[in-house]
Amino acid sequence: MRVGELSRRSGVSVASIKYYLREGLLPSGERTGPNQAAYDDGHVRRLRMVRALIDVGGLSVAATRDVLAAVDDPQVPLHEALGRAQATTTPRHAENAEDDDEARAGAERALADLVARRGWEVSPQNPAWGTAVEVLATYTRLGDDDLAGQLELYAGAMEGVARREVAAVVDRGDRARTVEGAVVGTVLGDSLLAALRRLAQEHCSHELLGGRAGADAQD
Amino acid sequence: MRVGELSRRSGVSVASIKYYLREGLLPSGERTGPNQAAYDDGHVRRLRMVRALIDVGGLSVAATRDVLAAVDDPQVPLHEALGRAQATTTPRHAENAEDDDEARAGAERALADLVARRGWEVSPQNPAWGTAVEVLATYTRLGDDDLAGQLELYAGAMEGVARREVAAVVDRGDRARTVEGAVVGTVLGDSLLAALRRLAQEHCSHELLGGRAGADAQD
Repeated sequence: MRVGELSRRSGVSVASIKYYLREGLLPSGERTGPNQAAYDDGHVRRLRMVRALIDVGGLSVAATRDVLAAVDDPQVPLHEALGRAQATTTPRHAENAEDDDEARAGAERALADLVARRGWEVSPQNPAWGTAVEVLATYTRLGDDDLAGQLELYAGAMEGVARREVAAVVDRGDRARTVEGAVVGTVLGDSLLAALRRLAQEHCSHELLGGRAGADAQD
Repeated sequence: MRVGELSRRSGVSVASIKYYLREGLLPSGERTGPNQAAYDDGHVRRLRMVRALIDVGGLSVAATRDVLAAVDDPQVPLHEALGRAQATTTPRHAENAEDDDEARAGAERALADLVARRGWEVSPQNPAWGTAVEVLATYTRLGDDDLAGQLELYAGAMEGVARREVAAVVDRGDRARTVEGAVVGTVLGDSLLAALRRLAQEHCSHELLGGRAGADAQD
């Protein structure tokens, strides 16, 4: 197909397609004339993945290129390709060097203990490690350990979720679709989990305080 | 105590304290001279809460003022004060009016069914409702229903988490500390859950693909 049809079938503008070609996110079509190239279904699928990574995953063009390179290189084990893709979607909690390191050291220990207790095989290079440490340290600095006490509860809930999620994307059977699913699922899943947590909190607050609310209001 | 000691004890600069006084986030001290006021432990606690809401919760000064007003007004039932506080920490998913409404209508139905099945008492005014609908609609638009299929799994995990979280903040027994804990816990909890989910995903990917990774690399 020509670029016009590629645009129609993928829903991506011709200008964007040309930009992705220049940036190396989309392989060139087969040259059929001085100013013409032919594209195939592989291009439609790749465009869909590029848009999912950029629009939904919020990845930069450079990060998208790295993820695609890992997907396309059969020498890169799938576990590693998934790890690289996941790292691009992990917001980093700003480290505050001025803050006392005691809180951070305590948080490091709490997280290492948790990981050991649960038998999780995780690399210290996973950027999520630093994020978890910073959050736990922030809670300690606020003089509050409620959240730290909920670490085990949170970890158990997330392990149950992750087990089903990873199995679902690996079941897709195709490297590209597995990595695409992991990036999109990780990003959208964050928002969906956060939203469902708030709805569940409202329900539980209603259960726990609903009866008391009326009484309060009449005081 | 004078403003200098209030600053030392709270760790908040005198300039910030004066700003919070002007903005009505901190009640005035007791006037003891033409340019002097005396502050007490209540001011220290209120400053701690203001900093938690602004620095950790990411609330604007206006949102902080609304939350404090709900905390301070005993006529506002605690359940409602918690709801107002929570609403300030809910990121809104941008609605895209151009996108087909069929995906959104389907997402609305899926969420309404979920809430009915689980017997959740939630108000359609909860901004998390719109966020959840937008995420589900986005997944449908990508032509993918894996995430929608995991809705029940996510909801169950979040209900378990929320039940313990709400009980923990209500157990604090003090309106101000309950609302402060809800705001801080909701915001920090989002980051901690997202980080633990990624660590758990790495572990599950290792479990599921670890053996295959070596074989892949030798292909």
